[in-house]
Amino acid sequence: MVTRYFNAKIYSEGKIIDGEIIVYNNLIAHIGPPVAGAMSDNEVDLKGMYVFPSFKNAHSHSPMTFLRNTADDLPLDQWLHEQIFPREAALRPDECYWFTKLAILEYLRSGISLTSDMYFMIEPIAQACSESGFRNVLMYGANDAVVQGKDIGKIYDEGFARLKDNYIRYRVGIHAEYTTSEKLLREISEYVNDKGEPVYVHMSETKAEVEQCKARYGKTPVQLFRDLGLFNAGGTVYHMVHPEGDDLDILKEMNVNVVTCPASNFKLASGIAPVKEMLEKGIKVGIGTDGAASNNRLDMFRENYLLSCGQHIKYNDASAITAKKILDMACVDGAAVMDMPLCGELKQNMLADFVVADVNSANMWPADDIPSATVYSGGPSNVYMTVVNGKVLYKAGEYFINEDVDKIFAKCKESLKAIRERM
Amino acid sequence: MVTRYFNAKIYSEGKIIDGEIIVYNNLIAHIGPPVAGAMSDNEVDLKGMYVFPSFKNAHSHSPMTFLRNTADDLPLDQWLHEQIFPREAALRPDECYWFTKLAILEYLRSGISLTSDMYFMIEPIAQACSESGFRNVLMYGANDAVVQGKDIGKIYDEGFARLKDNYIRYRVGIHAEYTTSEKLLREISEYVNDKGEPVYVHMSETKAEVEQCKARYGKTPVQLFRDLGLFNAGGTVYHMVHPEGDDLDILKEMNVNVVTCPASNFKLASGIAPVKEMLEKGIKVGIGTDGAASNNRLDMFRENYLLSCGQHIKYNDASAITAKKILDMACVDGAAVMDMPLCGELKQNMLADFVVADVNSANMWPADDIPSATVYSGGPSNVYMTVVNGKVLYKAGEYFINEDVDKIFAKCKESLKAIRERM
Repeated sequence: MVTRYFNAKIYSEGKIIDGEIIVYNNLIAHIGPPVAGAMSDNEVDLKGMYVFPSFKNAHSHSPMTFLRNTADDLPLDQWLHEQIFPREAALRPDECYWFTKLAILEYLRSGISLTSDMYFMIEPIAQACSESGFRNVLMYGANDAVVQGKDIGKIYDEGFARLKDNYIRYRVGIHAEYTTSEKLLREISEYVNDKGEPVYVHMSETKAEVEQCKARYGKTPVQLFRDLGLFNAGGTVYHMVHPEGDDLDILKEMNVNVVTCPASNFKLASGIAPVKEMLEKGIKVGIGTDGAASNNRLDMFRENYLLSCGQHIKYNDASAITAKKILDMACVDGAAVMDMPLCGELKQNMLADFVVADVNSANMWPADDIPSATVYSGGPSNVYMTVVNGKVLYKAGEYFINEDVDKIFAKCKESLKAIRERM
Repeated sequence: MVTRYFNAKIYSEGKIIDGEIIVYNNLIAHIGPPVAGAMSDNEVDLKGMYVFPSFKNAHSHSPMTFLRNTADDLPLDQWLHEQIFPREAALRPDECYWFTKLAILEYLRSGISLTSDMYFMIEPIAQACSESGFRNVLMYGANDAVVQGKDIGKIYDEGFARLKDNYIRYRVGIHAEYTTSEKLLREISEYVNDKGEPVYVHMSETKAEVEQCKARYGKTPVQLFRDLGLFNAGGTVYHMVHPEGDDLDILKEMNVNVVTCPASNFKLASGIAPVKEMLEKGIKVGIGTDGAASNNRLDMFRENYLLSCGQHIKYNDASAITAKKILDMACVDGAAVMDMPLCGELKQNMLADFVVADVNSANMWPADDIPSATVYSGGPSNVYMTVVNGKVLYKAGEYFINEDVDKIFAKCKESLKAIRERM
């Protein structure tokens, strides 16, 4: 199946190309000026709209949509322990499946083609994404409470043996230093050193977390993980709002990426991550929404914009970071962080994941500077079409995800009611 | 003409009312449970959607849409003096008119019914708004460069004598202390003391501005304006990011309001205004987008959300400000700041300005907590209808503003081209 999207402005490798994008099944066959005599099964006139390589949400907890707008405006501890954990404890797998499908609706509507979920229940997430044709890089968030003396190697092995199709991949996840004993961390270290797998972990999100780790081990979480050999095959740390001393140098040296989650860090008053310094050191940084409980939205437009806001204030500098760098972080670097580089750029032989946006909208015009317009002015209302693996999953208000949207809402309402009754 | 909007959830005076809203011409005749036997000319089934009192954009420069996405990522001084001022100097009145109409499209799409513009050219703004049926509280931004020895009293008098209809009001504006000589400030003080008019002015937006004022006068801008008698009839200050000493107490004592512009303060790295402290002192605070050059969007959803983000970080407290207070600031307090209290609340005998939003959207569900859902999860894509003065101006992608939308875009493109050629 060959589809030719013509009459487009395509953001490819930092440049705008006027022309067309030809998709052969799930791959990009051509980007550039019209090819004379090219055959196609479908012809789609994009009428001068703008195509960018789709956002990669590098850190989320998709099923947490059921906790959105719940218990806001509370201090972090009270929010987490009194409001979030008791509700999550009541969650069942079928409910997790429907809440993930709800998240997918929002992802597609806001130009996201790929998310990376860490959760304590991952099978239903994999199923929901795979059925929808939406990509997810999944990981079990290992910690003492969920592992409870079981063989962690076996848990991870079972993960890697699970469903593998065009949409789902698995990685090794650890919830965080503060929820995982040194014994379990050492077992995980053995596993990743044996398998050559990078680890994905929440790290240095709050000042208190770093202080507690230093009190326990006499070192920062970054130093601890390095010393335990957990970064020997690289890795990715989520948040990293409070690096100390040589933490950033260690991350760079060990080939560890960062995922920054600006909305979550603002909402929970965690602070502003020093992303400018990370980039200056050459650390690869992706961007993530985090879950809908610590954000209220699963919208990369918002994250991208907030990243800019935070860096301006942190460094007291209106030129602290550019729109172009943010757009590349959101689209390309995020894919690399998830070890999915074939979803990154729009160029020949890459996977056909892209977004068509209407820049001739009142909120974006004039949009001569496409990265500025996308990062500072764009929003979900500007997304016309989201294509994942060569398939149109969202177009002008309609979804094509093998599921009835009204059924998703009905199932979510039913599930939320059941959870509340069970609490 | 009586229109009955039924089957709605209405946010009125801090509560949610299930029922209907009956509009008699431009006024709200009833809010509450269905009235038996009530007659109406129109019946609109809102199908359980949510109605809130529309956002009031308490500070903007609407025609600056032509400077959107232009010269971003630059330090403030370079941005203003090398990029913005030269372009504005080339602006003509008919272009100002079309750029304002473009702004109105974005305002209505994002649930705004009223804006307040300070600009150096106000007649075309008044005309564009009046023709569209959109409200504007307008003021000339007096300063040495634009007044140039003319009689400031005459300029203001001419303003007050201008077009007055259901949509347009005039106020006394001063651009800022740093652009206005002491002589001109004293003339304006005479005028406002004579007329009993409050002044509207940019104030203490940047740290440097406050320092320079102290170097010139030995006092902060707030102290200076108080001492010159400029606050004798009250007033409103825009930004107030850097109050010092007893500035906030003076504002409270002199009955001076604040309009906070979070996106602008983030973009230009001006800082985070101490809104929490202002509210604790009992100062009335509205919210504004500022112009599209210092923001990139004219979207109160974004401002509301950013206000929350900034306060959380400034006070290191996830409970620094509540969603309910922000929603009331955006809808009710903003109207009061502009001295348009009849547009504030949704209740009987108030002007029929309101927004219908679909909370059953993937990005807002669950929305049991309506203020949280609106402030933290909502966005332009959730706005179904915007009603101003009893008239539907926007509904589901369509505008009813006595102007062809394509013509607005064509005229804006033509105007921008002409400005660039003229520079």
